[in-house]
Amino acid sequence: MKHVTTLEELTTALAELPRPIGFVPTMGFLHEGHISLARRASEECASVVASIYANPTQFAPDEDLETYPRDIPRDKAMLEEAGVDVVWIPTTEVMYPAGYQSWVTVEDVTKPLEGARRPTHFKGVSTIVAKLFNAVRPDKAYFGQKDAQQAVVIKRMTQDLSYPIEIVVCPIVREPDGLAMSSRNTYLNAEQHQAALSLSQGLKLAQAAFEDGERDANALRQIVIDRVNAEELTDLQYVSCAHPDTLEELEGDVNRCLISMAVFVGETRLIDNVLLE
Amino acid sequence: MKHVTTLEELTTALAELPRPIGFVPTMGFLHEGHISLARRASEECASVVASIYANPTQFAPDEDLETYPRDIPRDKAMLEEAGVDVVWIPTTEVMYPAGYQSWVTVEDVTKPLEGARRPTHFKGVSTIVAKLFNAVRPDKAYFGQKDAQQAVVIKRMTQDLSYPIEIVVCPIVREPDGLAMSSRNTYLNAEQHQAALSLSQGLKLAQAAFEDGERDANALRQIVIDRVNAEELTDLQYVSCAHPDTLEELEGDVNRCLISMAVFVGETRLIDNVLLE
Repeated sequence: MKHVTTLEELTTALAELPRPIGFVPTMGFLHEGHISLARRASEECASVVASIYANPTQFAPDEDLETYPRDIPRDKAMLEEAGVDVVWIPTTEVMYPAGYQSWVTVEDVTKPLEGARRPTHFKGVSTIVAKLFNAVRPDKAYFGQKDAQQAVVIKRMTQDLSYPIEIVVCPIVREPDGLAMSSRNTYLNAEQHQAALSLSQGLKLAQAAFEDGERDANALRQIVIDRVNAEELTDLQYVSCAHPDTLEELEGDVNRCLISMAVFVGETRLIDNVLLE
Repeated sequence: MKHVTTLEELTTALAELPRPIGFVPTMGFLHEGHISLARRASEECASVVASIYANPTQFAPDEDLETYPRDIPRDKAMLEEAGVDVVWIPTTEVMYPAGYQSWVTVEDVTKPLEGARRPTHFKGVSTIVAKLFNAVRPDKAYFGQKDAQQAVVIKRMTQDLSYPIEIVVCPIVREPDGLAMSSRNTYLNAEQHQAALSLSQGLKLAQAAFEDGERDANALRQIVIDRVNAEELTDLQYVSCAHPDTLEELEGDVNRCLISMAVFVGETRLIDNVLLE
């Protein structure tokens, strides 16, 4: 596996890779969720490029950029093992040079849910993903369903901005106890981890109700709310039952919906979701 | 020369082109200025792709999108003659599909000059050029110095958004009488054409003064203003003496500057510029 830093090193390395090229963008501190993307890319593509970059413009000033966990040697070993050919680990000097002033924005689908609580987040996400797409020029790019709204935003941006790139969204990978894998899980102590299980358990209860015929959006939301609020250490931010493509909040009977949520457990903000159809 | 319409047709055609690929984006109704870009691309690159698309998002509602001149058969013949291998002529259904909601913006350098008079123009320009870059994935892209601010905006966007594309800015091509070539010159009657010569003549006087040692920004601007205002049919919008990279307006002595201007002649808005250094 080749490790490159600058845009020039990347461009040189890419010229030697057979196509199709699969691309896996990450912020590092990898877990089985990321590795499932790299493995899928490796199965589907002749070459795989991954990136590791904790993008500052998608963190608000009060968020955890400074403390975001890092372990590059471990990340590199995991990516190589998963079949990655080139890993790009740019510096902020490479990504945001002096005088930087260009942004990619996506409008409607960034407004609700995470966008409503983290108003500058998706401008940072769409900009960095566009930059990574521009530099890597992949044929396919792999994202996790864990960040459900991000996947919708990136699909919309890819179509709107005429990228000839297929976006592949891969299923959430969970711990054996059901907790959705996240680099931020490392912030949780044992008690908090236990309380955090209420997210996936709430979603599972809603899914079971849906499979039993429950179609009312409010009832489905309430099942999740009740399970999370049964834990003392949780502080629920939102539970949404929304259209899976437009992310518009639904009322009344639903045939297809994305149930998604954000919950603080201590200082740690966790998200999870399930697609019901 | 291959003519393609959809993104899929373009992607298929591109796969067969040897690199480096040079790219010449146009709005059609081509003149010698455009053709100089295509010829330069043809000299410098193994393959040349051109696009023809009068991008609606860079025209304000009161501007001339509806009447913008068109002659696709003539444009195609001229591009083929200049060595273009693939011409992409997308429809608005291809470029702005239903639900479109993504934009590329460049901040500081879009604010003065044309940006101040046409506040939505550069958002349209940077978005369409990004889309064209994403679809064509060229190695080099060719723009005219005639649209001086556009060239600055595109260079900034290309660097900021990590495009591995070299931006080549080619000199203004002029009629024998000095009028800068523009598709909009077709709107001018003989009298207006005569009055429009004051733009290039004013710039030429400023250049001569600069070469004779005049360094004061105000004095240089005033030379151009006086020449344009000497014509009855002209209505001067602005004359600027600005930093060639940041486009900040300059005061006092200048060693390097972009003198640029916009003038209405009848209903037709003309621009021209000269780089003094």
